[in-house]
Amino acid sequence: MALEDPGFSERVATIEELLRLVARVVRRHGREILSRFDITPPQFDALVVLVNHEGITMGELCQKMYLACSTATDLIDRMERAGFLERVRDPHDRRVIRLRIKPRGQEVLDAVMDARRRYLAGVLSRLEEQDLEELTRRLRQVYGLMAGEMASG
Amino acid sequence: MALEDPGFSERVATIEELLRLVARVVRRHGREILSRFDITPPQFDALVVLVNHEGITMGELCQKMYLACSTATDLIDRMERAGFLERVRDPHDRRVIRLRIKPRGQEVLDAVMDARRRYLAGVLSRLEEQDLEELTRRLRQVYGLMAGEMASG
Repeated sequence: MALEDPGFSERVATIEELLRLVARVVRRHGREILSRFDITPPQFDALVVLVNHEGITMGELCQKMYLACSTATDLIDRMERAGFLERVRDPHDRRVIRLRIKPRGQEVLDAVMDARRRYLAGVLSRLEEQDLEELTRRLRQVYGLMAGEMASG
Repeated sequence: MALEDPGFSERVATIEELLRLVARVVRRHGREILSRFDITPPQFDALVVLVNHEGITMGELCQKMYLACSTATDLIDRMERAGFLERVRDPHDRRVIRLRIKPRGQEVLDAVMDARRRYLAGVLSRLEEQDLEELTRRLRQVYGLMAGEMASG
């Protein structure tokens, strides 16, 4: 397809919108359960950063979350008290403090993922087997192109 | 499809993951351009809230962003100085201050959306017309089910 084709631009805009809306609805359903764990969305965002960067330091966390370090420290203090994570001294350099997720934190992450899947299961259960197959195939195709680009870029 | 079918659960998990990964890659490409506008991701998040809730008050913004009001005030102060938004007194109740996006803020939102689409266009240009049609059709089908549910729920 030609990038200059106006029909193509329109189609891209439609796909971008649909992807964004669908992802947002699923995401919202996952986060609906956060209040049950007495955790706020920014605290949950910190957990997601933490699980993707095991052993991150406070300084790195502030950077990744674009928060002032005083704000991030306050956030982490509250999460440590609630048992979602812990501060651990780096065994190789005792001056460095690293953050580590605790089972309670992992439990929240799992529960949110589970809520996302349960919601999506309810929606997708109304599709025919063949529709599901096509949807998976098309998404895999797009993600394959993206991943290939990331690997080659 | 039966919700209890293990094959179905697996398929849902795959679709959930693909949707999440694809949406994340597109989102990241949109946000890559933020530094060009000298705006941070949390400031951009505030703009998104603002454009979805025209005339929001500071108190409502703190709530929606789950930020301490002191943090949000600091954020908004900087954004106002940079010309992304303005504080406007409510004409019906002079005690209430509302936030309004300025052209410079809208410009950032448009540029991020444009970057998302440009990235996606590059990816999707490698698909055949029929693949694009199928992808659009399947996403529309899923979003239609979600939207129908939201309307009826």
